[in-house]
Amino acid sequence: MTAIYLDYNATTPIASEAVAAMLPFLREHFGNPSSIHAYGDAPRMAMAESRQEIARLIGAQPAEIIFTGSATEANNLAILGLARALGVTRRHAVISAVEHPSVTEPFHRLQELGWSVTVVLVDAYGRVASRDIAEAMRSDTGLVSVMHANNEVGTIQPIAEISAIVRARGVLMHTDAAQSAGKVALDVEALGVDLLTLAGHKFYAPKGVGALYVRTGTPMAALLAGAGQERGLRPATENIPHIVALGTAARLARERLPETSTHLHALRERLHGRLLQEISGLTLNGHPEHRLPNTLNVSFPGVSGATLLQMADRVAASTGSACHAGDAAPSGVLGAMGLSHERASGAVRLSIGRYTREDEIDTAAAALIAAWRELAAGEHG
Amino acid sequence: MTAIYLDYNATTPIASEAVAAMLPFLREHFGNPSSIHAYGDAPRMAMAESRQEIARLIGAQPAEIIFTGSATEANNLAILGLARALGVTRRHAVISAVEHPSVTEPFHRLQELGWSVTVVLVDAYGRVASRDIAEAMRSDTGLVSVMHANNEVGTIQPIAEISAIVRARGVLMHTDAAQSAGKVALDVEALGVDLLTLAGHKFYAPKGVGALYVRTGTPMAALLAGAGQERGLRPATENIPHIVALGTAARLARERLPETSTHLHALRERLHGRLLQEISGLTLNGHPEHRLPNTLNVSFPGVSGATLLQMADRVAASTGSACHAGDAAPSGVLGAMGLSHERASGAVRLSIGRYTREDEIDTAAAALIAAWRELAAGEHG
Repeated sequence: MTAIYLDYNATTPIASEAVAAMLPFLREHFGNPSSIHAYGDAPRMAMAESRQEIARLIGAQPAEIIFTGSATEANNLAILGLARALGVTRRHAVISAVEHPSVTEPFHRLQELGWSVTVVLVDAYGRVASRDIAEAMRSDTGLVSVMHANNEVGTIQPIAEISAIVRARGVLMHTDAAQSAGKVALDVEALGVDLLTLAGHKFYAPKGVGALYVRTGTPMAALLAGAGQERGLRPATENIPHIVALGTAARLARERLPETSTHLHALRERLHGRLLQEISGLTLNGHPEHRLPNTLNVSFPGVSGATLLQMADRVAASTGSACHAGDAAPSGVLGAMGLSHERASGAVRLSIGRYTREDEIDTAAAALIAAWRELAAGEHG
Repeated sequence: MTAIYLDYNATTPIASEAVAAMLPFLREHFGNPSSIHAYGDAPRMAMAESRQEIARLIGAQPAEIIFTGSATEANNLAILGLARALGVTRRHAVISAVEHPSVTEPFHRLQELGWSVTVVLVDAYGRVASRDIAEAMRSDTGLVSVMHANNEVGTIQPIAEISAIVRARGVLMHTDAAQSAGKVALDVEALGVDLLTLAGHKFYAPKGVGALYVRTGTPMAALLAGAGQERGLRPATENIPHIVALGTAARLARERLPETSTHLHALRERLHGRLLQEISGLTLNGHPEHRLPNTLNVSFPGVSGATLLQMADRVAASTGSACHAGDAAPSGVLGAMGLSHERASGAVRLSIGRYTREDEIDTAAAALIAAWRELAAGEHG
């Protein structure tokens, strides 16, 4: 009996279309795209096509896309690469209190190098106010980095509002959109960002590939040092199979966005409705409206989320991000939102995906309700 | 008509065994290895198994293996990560004059940070003398990095001799063994190295995965900043399919080394013999004995290697490393060996692999000889 997978924010399966697209590059088209002989041609052309698909997904130009080995690397490149390119003129940054470790940790690295970083608090829904960003900015601010949507609670930040302020002051704006691609529309012009991070394995491409959008004209230096691939910004022989899969995943994400988003929203609301009906005191974590359509982070009253998931073993979900799995400390995101320890401890993140079926939602809801009843009864008995 | 592939030093096809091993991780076992639910189990176990295979290939312990997204990243981690961990106490390094850009460029980065780097020259065969390394070392030397085998000419360095000197002085030793795995034996104890780099796509695993051996007790800090994967040394959700393929490729490399090495050597000598027979004035670049069994870098007299390869389009080979493909400047490696401009310009790198057949060698030799004759006649006519 396989558990019902409701952990799409941790990672997604690879789309069968993406696997199919990879296979020729795992088999016959193995050449090095830097080779001048014929073996380099198919990989080089496939890479160009994939770059175009990524660009189309986010309304960018192909030349503005840099392939990386992960979203972590893309965030590191955006932050540390930009800092290296900026030099010492502007060494202050502004970030939100709910960023992923692959954003906060590079900023810690910058602090070691003499930067200062202002962390802007979020409201009870995990949302940053653009006026707080404005207030945090200084004359020496070089970069503002606010994630597009939160991995744990799904809250979507007012990036366009923030970037309007940031860019009006001539400051660069980065957003980590690792959780957003394929779930909501992403357009770098509408968002007004200079740098945007994508994670392959969050939208049905494999783990081990990501991309960074770098707006034309944005100062940028490489993170890794080596040969000249990706216009010198990301040396290393390119991971062609994964890059091909990323392009296919981007095309699917773009083509299917309206239906996917409707599907995710409908199932997410169904799941929430079932749980609300049977569990009095269930509370929603994250913004009721400005939220990814697939993410339902709820606190079950009177129980620990981790214990609940152990008992409801028909359901594969997590209490926070996968990076912190097994970590007993309550999530920093829920803490930043001001949740009580009890409510944070009862939190479970249920994240739905393209392949989730309605009957799975019903079975999962029943399993979670049964587990909660058993635990709650045990506590009171 | 497909060209005969004699460019295995640029990249190899993926072993069908490695593709087969990946497929379940591209299809059903898609989980995030950090997840505590059942979907994390298969990926986590597969990763552990792969780590063990890499360790076995080089005589290391599994805990000493860090997976990376490329050999470039492994070299960067070895050099920049070590430097970060060492701090400011020892800021001098020694490298050879024939290192790959993914080694020389990180050292340029260190120079920007105040390190000094001594580059030790090589002899006419591309070989470093261990006494030159000894002479270059200073009281503040923190790291010596000498590649195991050269990508362009195949010359194998006397790593054990060098490391004996380096380690006797309490200094750390890194070797970039990207070209060696699967071609010659690699044992970190026999070599006496603290850090060793592997490149998946040079031994029949996919592009986009590498590994760094870090001897227990070696100071090391992460290059990328993020969550805690790979004991904090390489954050990012792990590229499970590629890691699985890398493990399979490592097992094949280990199990088949004797037969592969014999096969490569026999075909390489056959090719060399054919060319020598028909082309008077053909010269070998690289060491006649201390050389990878698959690599034949030869200078064709009186012609340009690039033009020769354009004419002999039945043969897919390169004039130098793929990273420099299309670059008109003569190879830095051949320059460091003191080759005349004319001889460097006539150089062609023919690199043989596991799947090369005897009839391909004969056809390739005939094509190269015919192209050379035509070009040489044209020049004299």
